[in-house]
Amino acid sequence: MRVDVFFGPTSFAPGDVAGRVVAVIDVLRASTTIAVALANGAKAVLPMDDADEALTRARTLERADTRLAGERRMATIPGFDFGNSPREFTAEAVEGKTIVMTTTNGTVSLTAVQGARDVVVASYVNFSAILAMLRAAARGGSDLAIICAGRDRRFSLEDAACAGRYVRQIAKRVPEIELSDAALACSMVDRRYGDDLTRLFQDSEHGKALVAAGFADDLSLCASLDAYSVVPVYSDRQITRLGPDRSR
Amino acid sequence: MRVDVFFGPTSFAPGDVAGRVVAVIDVLRASTTIAVALANGAKAVLPMDDADEALTRARTLERADTRLAGERRMATIPGFDFGNSPREFTAEAVEGKTIVMTTTNGTVSLTAVQGARDVVVASYVNFSAILAMLRAAARGGSDLAIICAGRDRRFSLEDAACAGRYVRQIAKRVPEIELSDAALACSMVDRRYGDDLTRLFQDSEHGKALVAAGFADDLSLCASLDAYSVVPVYSDRQITRLGPDRSR
Repeated sequence: MRVDVFFGPTSFAPGDVAGRVVAVIDVLRASTTIAVALANGAKAVLPMDDADEALTRARTLERADTRLAGERRMATIPGFDFGNSPREFTAEAVEGKTIVMTTTNGTVSLTAVQGARDVVVASYVNFSAILAMLRAAARGGSDLAIICAGRDRRFSLEDAACAGRYVRQIAKRVPEIELSDAALACSMVDRRYGDDLTRLFQDSEHGKALVAAGFADDLSLCASLDAYSVVPVYSDRQITRLGPDRSR
Repeated sequence: MRVDVFFGPTSFAPGDVAGRVVAVIDVLRASTTIAVALANGAKAVLPMDDADEALTRARTLERADTRLAGERRMATIPGFDFGNSPREFTAEAVEGKTIVMTTTNGTVSLTAVQGARDVVVASYVNFSAILAMLRAAARGGSDLAIICAGRDRRFSLEDAACAGRYVRQIAKRVPEIELSDAALACSMVDRRYGDDLTRLFQDSEHGKALVAAGFADDLSLCASLDAYSVVPVYSDRQITRLGPDRSR
């Protein structure tokens, strides 16, 4: 078994993810937002590559049951119901709704994954729930791939740190697992920050940009380690909550 | 001033390097080999994207003064004078010669850089010579970009560690310099290994592959910190040695 980490949607080829269990991470903020939305009762999240595709897809759905979410340069896309702030996705706002979502980085990484065995959406807020699932897969002999969405094709410190936390916690229990160079490097980033996610976000370029744009409160939510036990699973172009009602 | 680090030839856009001083790193082995060749008296190294281009270019040059160097999957390309082992590039073999070179990773990263102010080839064997040049550029107000060639589009631990060593040594003397997320992460990798390059290469996937392919001796050479004081400069599609005879 092996864990690879990739930085950005253009850094992996189909062969790098085919047949593997894949975790996609966009800590700030798409993967956190998806976890919060599903934990708060959203029926499904449909990731779309761009705003046009999102609008087209939303038109095929029942308006009353559908919400449009989308962000460009951190701000809500005009005419959309939500941006990409996880704080907007309360139970009141999303329970029973299907969220059609496009974000700058996170959704593109998700739709770039083709042919994986399973794809889950990982972040700090649902860290342990995803960890249990990845560990079980590794113990069962699966290769894993962790995709750090990054930002505008660039490496993001917080995604690498979160990936490194998964890598270290998996390697602790499955010591025979082989780590790629990127997985090793991420584990060094995680070792630097540990549980001090406040400091991690202070050092990160995206964290600083979010504070400057007035989203400091989002950072506290994104740093709420294990606030939710949800496992968001991406399959058939939609993300739903893995649970007892799913025949997986 | 700012230092960015990019992982692989597809991870940066022209705007990321335009007007900057750029260092390209492929520790195992292209950038080490280029430094050794120029230190041993090669007149110039001409990086080419592929073997065909290298053969075509070599035909335009005087055969007696030209050597073909090229590697695919670590082995010498059939019909070429050298592979990519720095140990082949002795003074006897290269003095006064023009080396037309293609390698799997290093040369592609170099030819992908367009519009930079200066491009230098960096490694551990010429670490301090390049550091002096990068520090001077940063002090003079230049933005820097460090490109880690990586391996087959993938992140390489040894290139990231070497980049991190540059980042830390520059930041020590130019404390006001701004570091990108990737630059910060690389500095954490360097902090992990410090001067223990033997251990770094033992942990690295490419290092392990070279040992398995019989190139263990190359690793010792690639780990010879500051063995050469050469500054290889890439300009007009050729790499030459920066020196008193150059009017730069």
